[in-house]
Amino acid sequence: MKDQLRYGIVGSGALGGYYGAKLAHSGCDVHFLMRSDLETVRQNGLTIRSKDGDFHLDRVNAYGSAEEMGPCDMVLICLKTTANAALQSLVPPLLGPETAVVTLQNGLGNEELLASHFGARRVMGGLCFVCLNRTAPGVVEHFGHGSISIGEFKGPPQDRTMRLVTDLQRAGVDAKAVQSLITERWRKLVWNIPFNGLGVAAGANVAEVLADENLQAAARRLMAEVIKAAAKLGYAIRPDFIEQQIERSWPMGPYRSSSQVDHEAGREVEVESIWGEALRQARAAGADTPALGLLYALLRRIASRRFPTRPPDGRGARGPS
Amino acid sequence: MKDQLRYGIVGSGALGGYYGAKLAHSGCDVHFLMRSDLETVRQNGLTIRSKDGDFHLDRVNAYGSAEEMGPCDMVLICLKTTANAALQSLVPPLLGPETAVVTLQNGLGNEELLASHFGARRVMGGLCFVCLNRTAPGVVEHFGHGSISIGEFKGPPQDRTMRLVTDLQRAGVDAKAVQSLITERWRKLVWNIPFNGLGVAAGANVAEVLADENLQAAARRLMAEVIKAAAKLGYAIRPDFIEQQIERSWPMGPYRSSSQVDHEAGREVEVESIWGEALRQARAAGADTPALGLLYALLRRIASRRFPTRPPDGRGARGPS
Repeated sequence: MKDQLRYGIVGSGALGGYYGAKLAHSGCDVHFLMRSDLETVRQNGLTIRSKDGDFHLDRVNAYGSAEEMGPCDMVLICLKTTANAALQSLVPPLLGPETAVVTLQNGLGNEELLASHFGARRVMGGLCFVCLNRTAPGVVEHFGHGSISIGEFKGPPQDRTMRLVTDLQRAGVDAKAVQSLITERWRKLVWNIPFNGLGVAAGANVAEVLADENLQAAARRLMAEVIKAAAKLGYAIRPDFIEQQIERSWPMGPYRSSSQVDHEAGREVEVESIWGEALRQARAAGADTPALGLLYALLRRIASRRFPTRPPDGRGARGPS
Repeated sequence: MKDQLRYGIVGSGALGGYYGAKLAHSGCDVHFLMRSDLETVRQNGLTIRSKDGDFHLDRVNAYGSAEEMGPCDMVLICLKTTANAALQSLVPPLLGPETAVVTLQNGLGNEELLASHFGARRVMGGLCFVCLNRTAPGVVEHFGHGSISIGEFKGPPQDRTMRLVTDLQRAGVDAKAVQSLITERWRKLVWNIPFNGLGVAAGANVAEVLADENLQAAARRLMAEVIKAAAKLGYAIRPDFIEQQIERSWPMGPYRSSSQVDHEAGREVEVESIWGEALRQARAAGADTPALGLLYALLRRIASRRFPTRPPDGRGARGPS
């Protein structure tokens, strides 16, 4: 592998801006595909405000089109999944023969989507445990956490997996490689499906879900359904994981999940990649998931009332944000 | 039994105003316990606007206190169930040795509540299939339907059951007696739990629930859970009742359930008597009702955010409305 990888960031909102800026700040060769923030970033650079220390990048390789940006060694997909329809046109100009495509997006189905377009061999994924907000053009606020778990779509970590992990670690990110990426995605959904879902459908933060015996019971039931569905699909998660998730949630207090924050800020919630895809896979595997079915129906309805122009599959054609 | 019964109406909002006025208009001896509309009705009487024909009662026996109204032969409880805590003080002054107490309220648990205070022997109930709205003090609008099924809390119809049915029929109401009141309450919930619940939680009218495959699937699942819970409690409902309920819903079009109308008008939804009591009875009987559990948790949360002063059991102390 090359001494220095050429990184491409697709979707330079909060997620892409943050991890891309961390990599660039540590000396990596990073190129950002942007839309709305392009002019501001070209003129003023990128600013990260963080409890780990603020920093600013004066000169940023920012592009308004994938063609202009050209081939990279590793492309980090940081779009909202609601904009996934744009990937088919955005990614091809970034691909060389060995280019890896790494989705850092939420939920399920993103690796499969990339594999269907660009071949499974290229595809990697990362789970981000991080609280971010893009507070102004070219400005990302980092509120907490920040760890990232990187894995291959198919099979155990490879050299390229470890290379990305190492570059992230050098950039000060708590990164690690995981043996089974999709198992980790299901494990993350055990928390996201109830807490992000009830955050939107009930307007309840983590403390409020836990304090309300009926909401907490519903959260536990949703977790059990997710674990059962994952098991049917071959991803084993121990049942005591539920109790662990409840226990680790108490210290979060009145934390609002990213979906609740998005919803309350009038932004689109990633209904399909978090709830829709999990439900479709659960049903295909023959798992009975009545609470998830109801929650998904409600969230879709909530989303479709706010974003009525979305196509029926809940995914829209939007460029990088 | 007496030639003419002395009827008492507790809670003279839309429901009590409508059926009470129908009985009075046909010549029955009807006495109304009122709160907010008392002065207006004493001065201007009661007006019913209906596609079956408008009518007006000039002189109405209207009272501001139960003591003033005094004992009746048959007391019709027409309060919202959210005001049930008031019954303990409102009903005793209306009771003679043989007085029957008939709840025309929604959902489950109202007969049990009356029985616990006043003895099961007195208690009867009625299921009202009617669309009403109190549009101004002393004015009730009747939009459609109007049938009513009357039964004893315990056992088959008695003379008094048939007497009420007959008086209602003479008043032009499509009334009938039912053999098992509580079975009928569960049958009604098979429709109300999904359609009223999704009306509030998803803001979806009947046509919208049916047209959305995920909401319709959730509605069917909720129906199946209700039927299963009823069966565990000894109230048999055939499984093909689900298909019947879906079929009879299509012609309703964009009909909004009473709960959706209440919610959208800023009025309190009867969460406990419709969903809460059904869930508690289901759980006590060992029925697994995950979708109902989630829906109840969401509706409680929606209600408690809008009416934060309600006590934890969701029932409040309010006089007749």
